Amino acid sequence: MNFLKGVGVSPGIAIGRVFLKEDITIEIKNETIQDTESEIARFKDAIEKSKQQLQELYEYALEKVGKHEAQVFAAHTMILEDQELFESVYDKIRTENKNVEWALKEASDTYIKIFEEMDNEYLRERALDIRDVTLRMLRNLSGIEDNSLVLLKEPAIIIAKDLTPSDTAQMDKDKVIGFITEEGGKTSHSAIMARSLEIPAVAGLDSITLQVKHGDIVAFDGTEGKVFINPDEKTIELFKEKKERFEKRLQLFATLKNSEAITKDNVRLEIACNIGKPADVDRVIEKNADGVGLFRSEFLYMNRNDFPSEEEQFNAYKTVAQRMKQKPVVIRTFDIGGDKELSYLEFPKEMNPFLGCRAIRFCLGRIDLFKTQLRAILRASAFGNIKIMFPMISVFEELVYAKQILEEVKESLRNEGIAFNEGLEVGMMIETPSAALLADIFAKHVDFFSIGTNDLIQYTLAVDRLNPHVSHLYSPYNPSVLRSIKNIIDAAHKENIWVGMCGEAASDPKLVPVLIGLGLDEFSMNPASVLEVKWMIQQHSKEEMKAIAEQVLQFATSDEIERFLDTNEKIHLF
Amino acid sequence: MNFLKGVGVSPGIAIGRVFLKEDITIEIKNETIQDTESEIARFKDAIEKSKQQLQELYEYALEKVGKHEAQVFAAHTMILEDQELFESVYDKIRTENKNVEWALKEASDTYIKIFEEMDNEYLRERALDIRDVTLRMLRNLSGIEDNSLVLLKEPAIIIAKDLTPSDTAQMDKDKVIGFITEEGGKTSHSAIMARSLEIPAVAGLDSITLQVKHGDIVAFDGTEGKVFINPDEKTIELFKEKKERFEKRLQLFATLKNSEAITKDNVRLEIACNIGKPADVDRVIEKNADGVGLFRSEFLYMNRNDFPSEEEQFNAYKTVAQRMKQKPVVIRTFDIGGDKELSYLEFPKEMNPFLGCRAIRFCLGRIDLFKTQLRAILRASAFGNIKIMFPMISVFEELVYAKQILEEVKESLRNEGIAFNEGLEVGMMIETPSAALLADIFAKHVDFFSIGTNDLIQYTLAVDRLNPHVSHLYSPYNPSVLRSIKNIIDAAHKENIWVGMCGEAASDPKLVPVLIGLGLDEFSMNPASVLEVKWMIQQHSKEEMKAIAEQVLQFATSDEIERFLDTNEKIHLF
Repeated sequence: MNFLKGVGVSPGIAIGRVFLKEDITIEIKNETIQDTESEIARFKDAIEKSKQQLQELYEYALEKVGKHEAQVFAAHTMILEDQELFESVYDKIRTENKNVEWALKEASDTYIKIFEEMDNEYLRERALDIRDVTLRMLRNLSGIEDNSLVLLKEPAIIIAKDLTPSDTAQMDKDKVIGFITEEGGKTSHSAIMARSLEIPAVAGLDSITLQVKHGDIVAFDGTEGKVFINPDEKTIELFKEKKERFEKRLQLFATLKNSEAITKDNVRLEIACNIGKPADVDRVIEKNADGVGLFRSEFLYMNRNDFPSEEEQFNAYKTVAQRMKQKPVVIRTFDIGGDKELSYLEFPKEMNPFLGCRAIRFCLGRIDLFKTQLRAILRASAFGNIKIMFPMISVFEELVYAKQILEEVKESLRNEGIAFNEGLEVGMMIETPSAALLADIFAKHVDFFSIGTNDLIQYTLAVDRLNPHVSHLYSPYNPSVLRSIKNIIDAAHKENIWVGMCGEAASDPKLVPVLIGLGLDEFSMNPASVLEVKWMIQQHSKEEMKAIAEQVLQFATSDEIERFLDTNEKIHLF
Repeated sequence: MNFLKGVGVSPGIAIGRVFLKEDITIEIKNETIQDTESEIARFKDAIEKSKQQLQELYEYALEKVGKHEAQVFAAHTMILEDQELFESVYDKIRTENKNVEWALKEASDTYIKIFEEMDNEYLRERALDIRDVTLRMLRNLSGIEDNSLVLLKEPAIIIAKDLTPSDTAQMDKDKVIGFITEEGGKTSHSAIMARSLEIPAVAGLDSITLQVKHGDIVAFDGTEGKVFINPDEKTIELFKEKKERFEKRLQLFATLKNSEAITKDNVRLEIACNIGKPADVDRVIEKNADGVGLFRSEFLYMNRNDFPSEEEQFNAYKTVAQRMKQKPVVIRTFDIGGDKELSYLEFPKEMNPFLGCRAIRFCLGRIDLFKTQLRAILRASAFGNIKIMFPMISVFEELVYAKQILEEVKESLRNEGIAFNEGLEVGMMIETPSAALLADIFAKHVDFFSIGTNDLIQYTLAVDRLNPHVSHLYSPYNPSVLRSIKNIIDAAHKENIWVGMCGEAASDPKLVPVLIGLGLDEFSMNPASVLEVKWMIQQHSKEEMKAIAEQVLQFATSDEIERFLDTNEKIHLF
């Protein structure tokens, strides 16, 4: 028996046999070729073959895994159709006389680098997709078979260096008991997919692929990150019990689907979801959430050569609004800019992109793009319960200006006789310390706040949470953050507006009771957390949590607060 | 007559003839040479010649300009002795068969780039020094004469693309009436030098060198940035009057030198100075300031191949402490890290260095270096009124840990029988929003606060002030910043500790009355501002300013606050 500790990235208990997914290494030579046309023909063949495979995988995933997962292959097909990427390959073949493998590698590396450096998770993930497609092309060029997970015959625990989007999208939930990877962490693509598929997973386990072989037995806990290789009978028994408890928990949560998020002292709260694209609504409906608390609109920017048209945006917003029936859908205007580079939009190069020209700052400098989006949102508002929300407001003038532009767009829609919801609610994210400090002023000018804890924590603590050298300082439990949240909620309630939260803190089981106590009205999160948070809300009384929150605000450190919450008998953790 | 508007970077009025300093362009060819040894001999000759020139310039500057300015040439000589830089030149000559000019350019460009990307002004300026030394070497290699400002026979206004540190250090104050540059802004090297020499200057005037010729008459205002080329009689009269008023103002300020910073209602405040190296004490003494409110210790890191020894640091700190007699000297522990790269220290590469591993975060990860510095400071504390201050504290544990390490160092000094001030005051900078929010907690554990407004504003507004795309959002007048300052001061006074401010806001004439009203105890600034701030303090009553500050905190925007301060009859601006 061998014990290892990694990072738990997707909760659940798994016991089963190992399927070791070995990496295929393809050696790429830098060659000078003479016959450029036959090289281009090889390239075209590889594209065709890849497209065919992706089509098959799409159909497979659609049938065995789900519509959402199948989309990965549609996105990959779009990359194969990306003119810009492939023209740069043609170029390298024709003008530099490079072999196609080398040309492809060079071109895609450039693109991967651009996407990897972006500060937006959604956009950063695109680097993985390009990497994945490139690998597929290279495999096809060298005639290597796709060692895909489709081959999985028996249920197994997959162990790999890392999993590509193609890998995870092929995972038949009935066959994959769980997975463990060497690379990645909580926010890596495979971790997100694991949580979304509700498959237990552990990441960040260096050299695990060298320590197990096909057919070994592994037992692991996807919450704690504990992994046992070839466990003894006692350990297996223990994990079976754990698994049973975990499954009971899921069953219990499942029964909550049609109940409401009401505290023990009868206060009804809202549980909404964060989504990144229209297809994500499936899971919002599946969990019967109270609405969409954050619709990130950035997806509309990706895999394309031009700014999305008003019509395209309108259709996306309308689809979500209609599918959500009369439940609220909060659309956040574009949070792009900073270190992002898109071929059709110019962004300045910045030394500290998180402190740079992003979100509302970018939009207010590109009124044309901003107005197009606002028109699309307003038009869609005639078809459902849409609300609009501005991100990254740091000074009051920005809100005034953004609202003024919104009024202009409304006026022109009126003049054109185009319908929209005249009563559309306008809110703002509170994610900069300045907005938090001026919440009393802002509250007089919007219909709601949504606290973006991920950024608010970053700026409050002056910590880039993606930077491993300082990420230990990043914590939602820091008393400065909790005081800020209290200030925001109190200021909002004084003006009778509601406050939501769409950062990760909103679904942190330990924080939920504190947030109830602080008076948060709406919790918006990944669909996977909806039922657990509902359960949390049902276990606690707002009055009691008020006292808890007051106590919490007296502590000096995150650790003290976590310890207090871990051990307080009034806090019910599952 | 021709009117232009640039950026006023050093106050004062100048009227006089133009001395146009033209740029020498040296074309550098990329050649492959065979006789590497004769190339190395050329290199050595150029070094020798440059050293000789620098020695002469040092002596000239010492006599004509001042000790402080002469130091530039000593620093340049040190660059000429930098082994690492020159080994990389040798290398390129010997192994790549490059000509010395090309080798030197390549090696120095690498170094310049490293320094230019640093987020610390002091370190960033070093890029200029390397550029300057390289230019001198290249001039000597090509036999071009140094077109130096030493040649200046008559008093004149110098107009140039930009001025190098060599240029500014050669400026005889009696000969240079003022200067105007195409490049640069308020924080560029030449602007800092201009303020320090109290020579009026305007920067950022594109193509000015093409619009004037030797001998033209120019009149300009270094506060407003207004420049008239060949002004008419009326304009000259106007400028003469302005100049007279400005000089009266200086005379008035000069009479304040031996008076105290006491408000009209008899509250004594402290005016201290920010310094970057021991030599800066000259000007602190010259202005008769109440102490050193911020001694940046980073200079000790520069122009060297290894971490500064305890002895070197001790000597530097002791020198300052002794020269300041019993006046307080607040030494800030190293604020390095983030995007800085020094050959002898490893820094991680970071995407957002301002939110990265800097200052106390870096020091707490390198306890060995931190302890050496603390030992040096403690030992020096036996020789004057030294206080210690930790920068960039964002979570409470950092303060606890830093203080614990300080105690350990004290204990070992006690064991070794080495003297230090047992009553040494320990303070912290408040420059992160979290520290501001938790000021009540921190105040119980330190002897004083010093508000670092430059960073506090950056983090509060989530704006990198060096980023031109968002710097318009950066403002010390933002009500969120002023509320934060109020919170910090109130929390400190509740625990009976004093609060200083060492950011640029502390010497902003419009803000000084507000800061008096908020209860700030100590104002620390560039020596050039000391007398003006003293005058400001003497013009205002604390009681009256309290009411002003309260009114200010009700506004929603920086603009409203500035307008209010500009027009309020109780605020006296010179």
